[in-house]
Amino acid sequence: MTSEEFRRYGRQVVDWIADYHEQIESLPVLSQVSPGRIRDRLPAAPPEQGEDFDAVLADLDEILLPGITHWQHPSFFAYFPANASGPAILGDLLASGLGVQGMLWATSPAATELETHVLDWLADLLALPDAFRSSDTGGGVIQHSASDATLVALLAALHRVSGGASERDGVASGRYAVYSSAQTHSSLEKACRIAGLGNAALRKLDPDPATLAATPTQLRELMDRDVADGITPALVVASIGTTGTGAIDPVRELAEIAREHGAWVHVDAAWAGVAAVAPEFRWINDGVDLVDSYATNPHKWLLTNFDCDAFWVADRSALVGALSILPEYLRNTATDSGAVIDYRDWQVPLGRRFRALKLWAVLRWYGAEGLRDHIRNHVALAQEFESWVRADDRFELAAPRTLSLVTFRLRSGDDDTRALMERVNASGRMYLTHTLVDGKVALRMAIGATPTERRHVEAAWAQLSE
Amino acid sequence: MTSEEFRRYGRQVVDWIADYHEQIESLPVLSQVSPGRIRDRLPAAPPEQGEDFDAVLADLDEILLPGITHWQHPSFFAYFPANASGPAILGDLLASGLGVQGMLWATSPAATELETHVLDWLADLLALPDAFRSSDTGGGVIQHSASDATLVALLAALHRVSGGASERDGVASGRYAVYSSAQTHSSLEKACRIAGLGNAALRKLDPDPATLAATPTQLRELMDRDVADGITPALVVASIGTTGTGAIDPVRELAEIAREHGAWVHVDAAWAGVAAVAPEFRWINDGVDLVDSYATNPHKWLLTNFDCDAFWVADRSALVGALSILPEYLRNTATDSGAVIDYRDWQVPLGRRFRALKLWAVLRWYGAEGLRDHIRNHVALAQEFESWVRADDRFELAAPRTLSLVTFRLRSGDDDTRALMERVNASGRMYLTHTLVDGKVALRMAIGATPTERRHVEAAWAQLSE
Repeated sequence: MTSEEFRRYGRQVVDWIADYHEQIESLPVLSQVSPGRIRDRLPAAPPEQGEDFDAVLADLDEILLPGITHWQHPSFFAYFPANASGPAILGDLLASGLGVQGMLWATSPAATELETHVLDWLADLLALPDAFRSSDTGGGVIQHSASDATLVALLAALHRVSGGASERDGVASGRYAVYSSAQTHSSLEKACRIAGLGNAALRKLDPDPATLAATPTQLRELMDRDVADGITPALVVASIGTTGTGAIDPVRELAEIAREHGAWVHVDAAWAGVAAVAPEFRWINDGVDLVDSYATNPHKWLLTNFDCDAFWVADRSALVGALSILPEYLRNTATDSGAVIDYRDWQVPLGRRFRALKLWAVLRWYGAEGLRDHIRNHVALAQEFESWVRADDRFELAAPRTLSLVTFRLRSGDDDTRALMERVNASGRMYLTHTLVDGKVALRMAIGATPTERRHVEAAWAQLSE
Repeated sequence: MTSEEFRRYGRQVVDWIADYHEQIESLPVLSQVSPGRIRDRLPAAPPEQGEDFDAVLADLDEILLPGITHWQHPSFFAYFPANASGPAILGDLLASGLGVQGMLWATSPAATELETHVLDWLADLLALPDAFRSSDTGGGVIQHSASDATLVALLAALHRVSGGASERDGVASGRYAVYSSAQTHSSLEKACRIAGLGNAALRKLDPDPATLAATPTQLRELMDRDVADGITPALVVASIGTTGTGAIDPVRELAEIAREHGAWVHVDAAWAGVAAVAPEFRWINDGVDLVDSYATNPHKWLLTNFDCDAFWVADRSALVGALSILPEYLRNTATDSGAVIDYRDWQVPLGRRFRALKLWAVLRWYGAEGLRDHIRNHVALAQEFESWVRADDRFELAAPRTLSLVTFRLRSGDDDTRALMERVNASGRMYLTHTLVDGKVALRMAIGATPTERRHVEAAWAQLSE
């Protein structure tokens, strides 16, 4: 593609995206296609001769768009948001255009240094503990997702608890245990499988019936029993904002107990953590001064398109110890000097994209003020929605509201609640998903798309309650 | 950012990228900054008020650009390429603009179906075995990197060899073994650590002195010994194009031995695999009809910007068995029907970006013809470079040339070879990296940047031999 063609098609794509966002409200939020429908319309074989980019854009409109569930739609209330924004999209475009691979400091010093810097900035904005700063013993890194963050936290924990032996000798089943609330995200169970501990190593704490948060007394019991059985507590994962209901575990109490046993404490605040940009929501982070690692996703609720999970450790040496291998073809003067960060040693893959650019663009475009407004707006909308649920006798809250997530259901039972969800989702006018609370179906109203305004939340409630 | 602002800044960014690529030849390939230099120029604290996007672009030019090592520079010959192209950048931009999260089929059917489809297309283009197609027992998926591909191959192998017990019970050190050439990429050792086997489970085969490829007889000996010791062979990794010298392991012979012992065979063809778009290079894939999984990176040498690793399995059930966990909040009608692929079960993370769009854009823009030309051109340039090395008495080849990678050195010894590398890299006019072959330093001339022409390779040789 020549430079001139790139300029021409580039403008077309920028306009396509702007048009898409302008008209997104007119599209059904949840794609209504049946399985195989999209593939049926694609040619069976790749083209022999090159085609024009216009053909790609035409097929995007005609073939793919009906198969898109519109995560950026103002009436997308499903799962957790994955909100994007103009500056993030453009920052990401710059990363694609530069096409650098920041596996080592030496392979593009600016990619590493900007990442370290914006993660320090974000730690400032969220008022995270000093130990997480690069100027202290820790530091931040962008992971692909919160699942990756949980996995590397587990690997760092195993490194530390085994005195550095796990890299050589493996983990041996039945030797280590991991603890979390039963409400913790499934990525922890996946991490236990991946890291070779198996599901059997995971101890799930029964959530407190009122708050759905983990119960510290039970953690102590389980840990004491494991220690008596010769099993070493390796990791405790505390959630700030569980996926099901947004429950917030008592991080401080869990961390105090974990510390007595030398276990690593990781906080998964994938969705909720970014709310701490606003001082009035910083209570969610009580106790994080006692933890070893912390993850939150700007790609969920902080206007930065996927992928961008911000992960901090209080002691970077355990993480690097778990993940560093230095073959000859990666040796270089800067690495040998010890004066630089090589982020390949902070993650599972070797290669890495220049993801800091988009986060940098977001933090600068919005500023601290803009980010606070963004979060406050969604929380205020959820408060209103909660009040409407409370005021309607046919509905009940299934769990306390957390920030911008309201979990609710019809009092008349699971079948009605499920039918209501299916009806509104099939309408294409809104999209929300469900969970189970106390074994009963509950709907999750997760407010967080970038363009969501009061009228969209009002319309959603009108449709749900009609 | 308003729609109008997005259009305006979007055009500016598109032009910035076009300008960057037009003038890239005038920039020093390898960044010449010292550690900390970039961070020193960035403000210590994030902005309180939002800033203009122009300020981001200005700082990109003034502060970041001197800290960029230009991977898209025509004289970038280091590591392996990570080449990008206009259609890839624009396809990726569309993915950012759509901002969908394709963890499940239901969360954007087109994202899943296009990915399955283009991986089938790519399997066609590379003439990979039928079993790797989605219409058969297998299928393809885009992974973040070849490291992730190796890791999930190991997890699928452990699932199969343990009869599905590894997910629950973990792996127990000393119970399983993994085999590869000592020249295999370090990501395999990292995967062994991550999966809880430890480095100790990895058996490294001595490479054949002439070809630097793995020796099948040694594989059989090691496997027999392990089986006698009660250790189960879990995985054999064969490389098609090692990182050091581009060596190609005898896949067929390794796979035949592995099959006798029930071990999974994964092929890491991260860099070289895409060369099979040209029929005359398909010999590299001899024996892949016998393997269980195969990975190659369009983000290395097939014009698709990072990240895009293409990974195929011959039996998708083992992979899904290793990685699937279904919590209530992810249940949906399509998943329950079993009629769809949920790619979250094919990878470590849950969330996923719509990466198939950029690969689709590349395959359509270039067509099979254009992709073949691209590969052939680089291989022809490397052949020429090889002939110049051979004709100069001061130099020698350190290993046989593979495709577009030439490994060579000065006959006068390591110090001179290393000094030569440092001199040319410090000049900013070209960039190449080194490896060790038979314990001696060798330089790697890896030709593969999108804009590289004969004159760049000629200039590189002139500088090296001057």
